[in-house]
Amino acid sequence: MDWTNRKVLVTGGAGFLGSNLCHALAARGARVTALDGFLFGGGANAANLDGAAVELVRGDIRDLDLRSLCEGSEVIFNLAAQTSHMGGQRDPLADIAVNAVAQVRLIQAVREAAPEAVVVHASTRQFYGRPHRLPVDEEHPVAPPDANGVSKFAGEQYWMLEHRVEGRPVVSLRLTNCYGPRLRIRDARQTFLGIWLRCVLEGRPFEVWGGDQLRDLTYVDDVTDAFLRAAEAPSCYGRVFNIGGAPPASLHELAGILVRCAGGKARYVTREFPADRARIDIGSFYADDSAFRAATGWAPRTGVEEGIARSLDWFRSRFAAYL
Amino acid sequence: MDWTNRKVLVTGGAGFLGSNLCHALAARGARVTALDGFLFGGGANAANLDGAAVELVRGDIRDLDLRSLCEGSEVIFNLAAQTSHMGGQRDPLADIAVNAVAQVRLIQAVREAAPEAVVVHASTRQFYGRPHRLPVDEEHPVAPPDANGVSKFAGEQYWMLEHRVEGRPVVSLRLTNCYGPRLRIRDARQTFLGIWLRCVLEGRPFEVWGGDQLRDLTYVDDVTDAFLRAAEAPSCYGRVFNIGGAPPASLHELAGILVRCAGGKARYVTREFPADRARIDIGSFYADDSAFRAATGWAPRTGVEEGIARSLDWFRSRFAAYL
Repeated sequence: MDWTNRKVLVTGGAGFLGSNLCHALAARGARVTALDGFLFGGGANAANLDGAAVELVRGDIRDLDLRSLCEGSEVIFNLAAQTSHMGGQRDPLADIAVNAVAQVRLIQAVREAAPEAVVVHASTRQFYGRPHRLPVDEEHPVAPPDANGVSKFAGEQYWMLEHRVEGRPVVSLRLTNCYGPRLRIRDARQTFLGIWLRCVLEGRPFEVWGGDQLRDLTYVDDVTDAFLRAAEAPSCYGRVFNIGGAPPASLHELAGILVRCAGGKARYVTREFPADRARIDIGSFYADDSAFRAATGWAPRTGVEEGIARSLDWFRSRFAAYL
Repeated sequence: MDWTNRKVLVTGGAGFLGSNLCHALAARGARVTALDGFLFGGGANAANLDGAAVELVRGDIRDLDLRSLCEGSEVIFNLAAQTSHMGGQRDPLADIAVNAVAQVRLIQAVREAAPEAVVVHASTRQFYGRPHRLPVDEEHPVAPPDANGVSKFAGEQYWMLEHRVEGRPVVSLRLTNCYGPRLRIRDARQTFLGIWLRCVLEGRPFEVWGGDQLRDLTYVDDVTDAFLRAAEAPSCYGRVFNIGGAPPASLHELAGILVRCAGGKARYVTREFPADRARIDIGSFYADDSAFRAATGWAPRTGVEEGIARSLDWFRSRFAAYL
């Protein structure tokens, strides 16, 4: 698809994945509007859009006039969300307000203001819950392990209805743990890797909780590539897809890779899983993303060693903006 | 279980299923509070509680002080909901506000005011969507065909989380089409049978849309029995169960049964499925409810002929209160 001059809206556009997508779209010549509510504790960071030719609209999808925002959009990448699992447990009302109720508002606005727009929705593997089988494909039963999983599934399903009932081209990508430049590294709210990176950059030991759980990390450039391909492929419309990443590795292995990438100077300590998190933990997870590979030709191109090394490099020169 | 003097809350207690449950509980000596918001277009009818020793609280779970309402409840039957499929499509914001957001509020209130209460939640087979296989068991994938299915699944899952994360005894019953005394018969908002019964009682022909779809109707006394057994059986806690009913019959067959029950004087016409409903229709459905039968010994006891005959008799003498 030629993105030149296409009018594109990215909700959550100042967040980790949204901002990386904005950079990629702007580089391809698209006219990009980034909407972001800069929710407390979320992934938004004004520094994320430094250097991108993108119009930033600060506003909350829960109460903003969404019609005028969506007017004339040809493609909408919908990444605005409350993504913290513990945050959803602490305040499930705020969580559902963003992840499901505001999605209904956005769907109605898009129906009126951008009737032709293609929508790519950022979803999550979280609502599969603790896997019954590995790898997890899209037919795996849905059993949300936490309030965030409930609200994110509802939000996705409203979008899929918009395809089934109204015929809109909608694709939903169920993402696993993503990482790379522009990740929130202040704490662990955007994957454990965020706080690991911060600790390493500060010369402090990081903590590995448990350690045997398997994860299939996706480097952010591969996520961006998946979003662009999903929008470009009509064969994807009306479908949900798992997006995996690197071959599964345990948290212990990933910790070892991070230590090596840091030149062997980093250290970590192993801790038991905290009780309040253990109750919503999903154990090992890795995705079967063969459906998306088959539909689009997508494949993750960045291995964990390379991705972590690149992330460390990127944050080293910009560390202050991410604390 | 001995229900004598047990403090029981029934949300949606003036509705079709809720009021029948209130009558049964009051007859067993329970101290029953019925909460109902009398939502426009819903199943609530003050006449439904005629003759039952039940305290009726008029209030909307979206804004009522739920803590004082729940105080001291030993068992909560949670039937308050927006249940109309077309209603959910027309106003998905009101639909999710009742079926999911208010559930989060209720869960928090119950946690504080009734920490020991057993909760039986009224869920629906609707969110399975168009069945991939028949009969539909609890492992069937969830693919809500309409906004109401999205919100009802979210509401149920919040309750199941309350079991998994907080340990509360919760059972969710996924109901199919239910019918019998106290059904809303003014229109088709509570199953097609409602409007069929009205037409027959008024001597007008009723309409059969499509006709080949299979349904497994549950007579209301069997639903009440299922709710009571679910509350009484600790082996049910933490589980979701399908509740089926009579052996599956097509709408054509059901129409024939209704005509026979009416003494052969009733008539019906067959119509094509209206387009706006066809887009959210699920086709044939019948449940595999063997898990609930095994866990509780429950079995439906009222066949369709008997149930329809009883319903006609019941409404004949009370028709004016249901228009």
